[in-house]
Amino acid sequence: MSLINRLETSAADFDARLGTLLDREDAASLAIEERVREIVASVRRDGDAAVLDLTRSLDRIRCDSVAELEVPAERLRSALENLSPAPRRALEFAERRIRRYAEQQKESGWLSEDEFGNQLGQRVTPLDRVGVYVPGGRAAYPSSVLMNIVPARVAGVGEIIMVVPAPDGIINDLVLAAAALAGVDRVFTVGGAQAVAALAFGTDTIPPVDKIVGPGNAYVAGAKRQVFGRVGIDSIAGPSEVAIYTDGSLDPDWAALDLFAQAEHDELAQSILICPDTAYLDRVEAAMERLIADMPRAEIIRASLQGRGALIQCRDQAEGLSVVNRIAPEHLELAVAEPEALLPEVRHAGAIFMGHHSPEAFGDYCAGPNHVLPTSGTARFSSPLGVYDFQKRSSIIHCSQRGGQALAGPARALAEAEGLDAHARSAAVRGEPE
Amino acid sequence: MSLINRLETSAADFDARLGTLLDREDAASLAIEERVREIVASVRRDGDAAVLDLTRSLDRIRCDSVAELEVPAERLRSALENLSPAPRRALEFAERRIRRYAEQQKESGWLSEDEFGNQLGQRVTPLDRVGVYVPGGRAAYPSSVLMNIVPARVAGVGEIIMVVPAPDGIINDLVLAAAALAGVDRVFTVGGAQAVAALAFGTDTIPPVDKIVGPGNAYVAGAKRQVFGRVGIDSIAGPSEVAIYTDGSLDPDWAALDLFAQAEHDELAQSILICPDTAYLDRVEAAMERLIADMPRAEIIRASLQGRGALIQCRDQAEGLSVVNRIAPEHLELAVAEPEALLPEVRHAGAIFMGHHSPEAFGDYCAGPNHVLPTSGTARFSSPLGVYDFQKRSSIIHCSQRGGQALAGPARALAEAEGLDAHARSAAVRGEPE
Repeated sequence: MSLINRLETSAADFDARLGTLLDREDAASLAIEERVREIVASVRRDGDAAVLDLTRSLDRIRCDSVAELEVPAERLRSALENLSPAPRRALEFAERRIRRYAEQQKESGWLSEDEFGNQLGQRVTPLDRVGVYVPGGRAAYPSSVLMNIVPARVAGVGEIIMVVPAPDGIINDLVLAAAALAGVDRVFTVGGAQAVAALAFGTDTIPPVDKIVGPGNAYVAGAKRQVFGRVGIDSIAGPSEVAIYTDGSLDPDWAALDLFAQAEHDELAQSILICPDTAYLDRVEAAMERLIADMPRAEIIRASLQGRGALIQCRDQAEGLSVVNRIAPEHLELAVAEPEALLPEVRHAGAIFMGHHSPEAFGDYCAGPNHVLPTSGTARFSSPLGVYDFQKRSSIIHCSQRGGQALAGPARALAEAEGLDAHARSAAVRGEPE
Repeated sequence: MSLINRLETSAADFDARLGTLLDREDAASLAIEERVREIVASVRRDGDAAVLDLTRSLDRIRCDSVAELEVPAERLRSALENLSPAPRRALEFAERRIRRYAEQQKESGWLSEDEFGNQLGQRVTPLDRVGVYVPGGRAAYPSSVLMNIVPARVAGVGEIIMVVPAPDGIINDLVLAAAALAGVDRVFTVGGAQAVAALAFGTDTIPPVDKIVGPGNAYVAGAKRQVFGRVGIDSIAGPSEVAIYTDGSLDPDWAALDLFAQAEHDELAQSILICPDTAYLDRVEAAMERLIADMPRAEIIRASLQGRGALIQCRDQAEGLSVVNRIAPEHLELAVAEPEALLPEVRHAGAIFMGHHSPEAFGDYCAGPNHVLPTSGTARFSSPLGVYDFQKRSSIIHCSQRGGQALAGPARALAEAEGLDAHARSAAVRGEPE
C-alpha cells in the first residue's frame, strides 16, 4: 500500500474522490452527548460537590475540596523560574511574538457626528472574565496555552481562568510555565465537561466566565456546544489540515516534512499537496518513503496520510488554486517563488504561509499569528482566534435635540408601516418642537 | 393588578426577584427540534423536491418547481418604484444612514515586517455568498431587511440570497422594496426550517451559502442551530429588551412610551426602568396607566409589562448602573442630562442610547447602527450585527530566508518539548544555512 493517495483533477472521478477525502461529517456520538448532558446538569445543580466528585473519579485525584484543586500562584511562578534556559528562551521568544502580533489586532472604538449633530459610534470593551481550557495528559501543549491566553490578555480581559485536567495528579510543568508567562490569573486542575460546566455556571469556588476558549476532547467539545448561548465559545475545532500549493520549486524533502508535520498530529489530520507537475509529485512521494523511517510518530503519520492525505496533480495554477478554495484549508502553504502573485486568487484559508521559508510549523509556535484557526472548511466564513474574540462592541447613539427632530419623522413613518404604534409615538414625541 | 412590577434594590428578596424576571431559560421544545431534524434531513437528501413539497403544504402555495418560487428581479424593482413617496423617502433615509454607519465598520488588512525581515499580517476578505432569512406573514419588517442586507453589501459579499415565506402566496411589498433598495441579488419565497436547510446544503435551484443571518421563529432558530458549523450563523435572537436608567430627568410620558415601544414587540419582550427616585417612578407608572388606553397593541403591552417588565428603585446611580451591568441589556437608554459621565460605568449593553432625545425606536429604524443586537445577557460577550460579520480574516506569514533561520531554533525547541518531531524537522531544515 502506498504511503499517500494520488489524485488527478483530470480523472472523471476526481470530484467524488476529493469529496470523500474532505468529508468532515462528525458523527458526534449520542452516548457522549447524553453523558455530557448529565455532567453539565449535575455541575449546574450541585456545584463544587459535583466537580469534586467527578474529578476524584475521572482523574483519580485525592482531595477534599475544589479549593485544593487550584494551583497556587507560587507554583505557577516557580514552574516558570525553574525552567531550563533553552525552553525558557524559546517560550519567551514565542510569547513576545504572539503578543506583538496580537497588539496589532486590538480594535478601538470610534465616534462620528452626522449632519444633524447626532453622535454615532462604536464602543469597544474587553470581556470581564474568560475561561481557557487546556488539555492535560499526553497532549499537553504549552504553545496552545500561549495562543489562547495572550490575545485575551492583550484585549484587556479582566480575569483569565485556566482549567487543565491533571490525571493522577500529573501536570506538565511547561504548561504551567507558559500560563505564568502569558499572564493567567487563576488555574484549576479540573478537566472534561465538568470543567466547562463549572466555568459556564460558576460554583462556590470556580467563578463563572463570559466566554470559554481552547481545544479539548469530544466531552469538552460537547459541553462547549451545550453551554453556548449562556457563555460565548470559540469554534469547535476539527482535525488539523494543511494544503500546500507548489509549482514544483519547493525542495521535495521539505515538502515531505511539511506534510508529515501535519499528519503527525493524529490519524484524522489532513495533508494535501497540489502541483501541476507529476514528476515533482513522484519526487515528493519518494522523499516521503525515504524520510518516514526517521519519524518517531511514523505510525500516526502513515494512518493519517493513507486515510486522508493526497498528492493532487492539477492541470495548471488556476485549477490548483480553485482546488485550494474548495478545500478552504486551515493552513495553506503557497510554496512558489513569488507567492504574492497568487494571493488574489486565494479566497479561503485560515493562515497563508508564503514562499519556501514559511513552514506551517512556524505558525504553530512562534511566527506570531495565532495557531487557533478555522478547520473543516469553516475558513469560508470564520477567522483565526484573535484579540477581537475577547473584545465586544456596543453601538453609541447620542441624538441632539435638533438631530432627534430630524430622525423622528422617518422613524415614525417606518414604525407605522410595520404596525408598531408605540414605536411611532416614542419617536414622534422627540420630533415635537419644545 | 398593576400594569408593571415594582422592585426595590433595598428589599431582601431583590436579587431573587430580579433573577426570576431575567430568567431566560429557553425550554426549546424537543418536539420542534425533532421536526426540524426531519426537515433538514429531507431537504439535504431530496433538495428541490423536499423544498417544493414542504412549501406547498406549509405555506399553501401552488407551484410546480422551486424556480417558480424565485421572485423575478423585475418584481423587486417594481415594488420599490411603486412605493408611495412618504414610505419610500423614509426607507431611503434609513438605508442611507445604515449604509454610512456600516461603511465606518469596514475592516481592512495590514502587513508589518519584523526585525528579521519576515512579513506578518492579516488579510480581510468578504464572504462569497450569504443567506438572509426574513420572516413573512404578519411580522414582516422592512427595517430588518435593511439591517441584515446593508452590512453584507458594504462588506462586499459576492452574492446575497434572501428567503422569505409567502404564506398563501401573500408577500409584503415593503419587504420586497427594502430588499431591492438594500441590493439583494436573489429572493426565494421559501421559509421555515426548509429555507435554512436549502441555504446550508444548496439544492439544484437554491445555491448553498457560507453564512445565514436573520431572525425567525422556533423552527428557523432550531434549523440555524443544526446547520451551524457547515455554515456560519448570526446569534440566535431571544426576546427584545430595553433597560432605561434615568435620574428622573426624562419626561415621564416619554419614559412610558419608550417602555411601551419595547413591550409591544411580544409578550416576552422586557422593559425595565431604573431610577433612585420613588416619586419619579410613581409618575412614570401613572403616565403608563394613562397612556396605555391609546395603544392599539395594549393587550400585548400589558402582558409583557406584567410578566417581564419592572420599575426598579435603586439607592443611587452607582447601584443603578450595577443593576444595568447585571442585566447586560440589548438596548440601554441613559436618560440623564450628561450621559457621557455614566458611560465608563457601563460594561455590557448591545446599544447605548444617550440622553433624552435618543429613544430606542430611532435605533430600530434609522439612527444608523444595526438593530440586530445581542439579547438575553449575551452583550457580556457579543456584539451588534455588523460589516465584520460578513468579512473574515486570514493570517499572512511570509518569512525571508534569514527570517526563517531566526524562527527555526525556537520553533524546533518548542516542537521537541511537545514531542512533535516532524514539526521540529520541518522547522529545522529552514534553519540550515544554504
